[in-house]
Amino acid sequence: MKFPKIPSINTNKEKEAAERQNQLTKPTGSMGRLENLSIEIAGMTGIIAPELKKRSVFLMAADHGIASEGVSPYPSEVTAQMVMNFLNHGAAVNVLSNLSHCDVTIVDIGVNYDFPHLPGLISRKVAKGTKNMLKSPAMTQSQAEQAIQTGMDVLNEAADNGLQLAATGEMGIGNTTSAAAITAVLCDKHPSEVTGRGTGLDDHGLARKIKIIEQVLEVQKPDPNDPMDILMKIGGLEIAGMTGVAIAAAARGIPMVMDGLISTAAAALAEAFAPGVRNYLIAGHLSPEIGHKYLLEKLGKSPLLQLGMRVGEGTGAVLAFNLIDAANDILRNMATFESAGISNR
Amino acid sequence: MKFPKIPSINTNKEKEAAERQNQLTKPTGSMGRLENLSIEIAGMTGIIAPELKKRSVFLMAADHGIASEGVSPYPSEVTAQMVMNFLNHGAAVNVLSNLSHCDVTIVDIGVNYDFPHLPGLISRKVAKGTKNMLKSPAMTQSQAEQAIQTGMDVLNEAADNGLQLAATGEMGIGNTTSAAAITAVLCDKHPSEVTGRGTGLDDHGLARKIKIIEQVLEVQKPDPNDPMDILMKIGGLEIAGMTGVAIAAAARGIPMVMDGLISTAAAALAEAFAPGVRNYLIAGHLSPEIGHKYLLEKLGKSPLLQLGMRVGEGTGAVLAFNLIDAANDILRNMATFESAGISNR
Repeated sequence: MKFPKIPSINTNKEKEAAERQNQLTKPTGSMGRLENLSIEIAGMTGIIAPELKKRSVFLMAADHGIASEGVSPYPSEVTAQMVMNFLNHGAAVNVLSNLSHCDVTIVDIGVNYDFPHLPGLISRKVAKGTKNMLKSPAMTQSQAEQAIQTGMDVLNEAADNGLQLAATGEMGIGNTTSAAAITAVLCDKHPSEVTGRGTGLDDHGLARKIKIIEQVLEVQKPDPNDPMDILMKIGGLEIAGMTGVAIAAAARGIPMVMDGLISTAAAALAEAFAPGVRNYLIAGHLSPEIGHKYLLEKLGKSPLLQLGMRVGEGTGAVLAFNLIDAANDILRNMATFESAGISNR
Repeated sequence: MKFPKIPSINTNKEKEAAERQNQLTKPTGSMGRLENLSIEIAGMTGIIAPELKKRSVFLMAADHGIASEGVSPYPSEVTAQMVMNFLNHGAAVNVLSNLSHCDVTIVDIGVNYDFPHLPGLISRKVAKGTKNMLKSPAMTQSQAEQAIQTGMDVLNEAADNGLQLAATGEMGIGNTTSAAAITAVLCDKHPSEVTGRGTGLDDHGLARKIKIIEQVLEVQKPDPNDPMDILMKIGGLEIAGMTGVAIAAAARGIPMVMDGLISTAAAALAEAFAPGVRNYLIAGHLSPEIGHKYLLEKLGKSPLLQLGMRVGEGTGAVLAFNLIDAANDILRNMATFESAGISNR
């Protein structure tokens, strides 16, 4: 599979943004992380303090064969039910997207349910969920490629229509198991170091989940240096889709905000497929899923928010949009020492 | 000085909010800190998921006699210049308040400058700045009481006009010195443990600032159990004003978001004057000023944001308004498992 070339960051615009930050009527560096963020965005987009009004969270839904091993307290049918909830604007991501003036692009990339034609649902089902990766690879290479291509297609279509800011989110019962397995391989950690409670496992359930991931890695032996091998053996269709979104966003110079463990695992695979993707990534929120911090470290990102949220769906990414707006608004709209006639130090 | 009675939190509404959180279409507890926040706000306001549309940051400006000791890299005249900048919408707090749909209430409570009549400026000057607390108490008790009363008056007037959400912010060259001294006394810490670089002191400047605070505490000997003694000897007029805002907000059942070190020092004094105030306080942002965390611990608050911001002006408080909206929107607008027909665990 061939991937698009990822453009270099515009370092001239970064410098220009940094210089302007230092002229604004505040002590040097005193907007902290928001100053860096505004500089990074200037480098990604080539624009000083863009408004980034056209924005969407790409919400990929798919089922997981591993769910039949009881790795989640919720039954698999919840994946399809939640897709209906997204379409009806009832989920957390809908509420937060509304607050952030953000579209929600809902993609059925692998749900184990035959949806009728539904307005607002993009039907790009690659398969009715993955296979149980305890017994066989989660998907074929052809399926993985098709799912990545779907993510790239969906992003590119939105970019053709003016998209300026993206986020990834997911729904898929069982998908923290897949993401934790990917994290163990990518970050060279034991499953117990990267596996969390997902939607709310108790101690017993957590121990079982770790054991299952150990077995999966023993059976599948994914090659840590081959992202396609990892993705097809222990990945998910929605994870592959989000990988495609991240690659295409970077290729188009569009900043992309990651959500939690699953979204970030997809972004880390994207960086492995197409080096340079990471330059267009922003970490929205630190998940309490314990593997997340290792993925962020690997990508060299520090999260904007740390609120203990673990809903997924892109909620942590979309909530961080307000901080991106704040960073850009500060750089665009504050007075300078000169324009305001204020004594500098 | 007599203070208003602080009403109890509405624990029935807290329970009702918590029960509703558990019915929403997300794993139990999975919105993390935002769930607690929505429950706290229900307890403060007696309303489940209020919209809190009418909101203001109360921005108090005053000068400090101690500034003549060179505790800030900026000259004192910047206090008045920044008040003009606030009035012209050019400062960081203006930009962030605009993003958060928040009014900015600008009060001259003690600036060492004769402003002409200016639309938007509330002129309630108690004195032209404090005295140099290295040589005499910063203010008289009568001045401290007048400044607290000013804060209460300004908040009460806004509350009479429908205010639903408040924040405090400040401008005053030299005021981190006063706030650090207050923090040392209230939290029983050595000045070196609570004194930071303010607007940007170098190592030498920081060492001098610590030395000056040591001397101030030796000379003034404020009584740690007497908030009025602390405020008049080592406080500031804008700090006293913010103390009044916090007391009146709590008395009216209005949630109040604290900003950084100075705003939180004022809130801690408010709690000492009128126990129960803390139940109406929300910590917006953790300041890199090292004393801030001790004040927050004393008040039992954990900050919503940690972005390394150190502008003051109420910026960290106003930026957190979006998270308060998110918390309330989630509770108000999400579907329940029952309404959405989704299988619970």
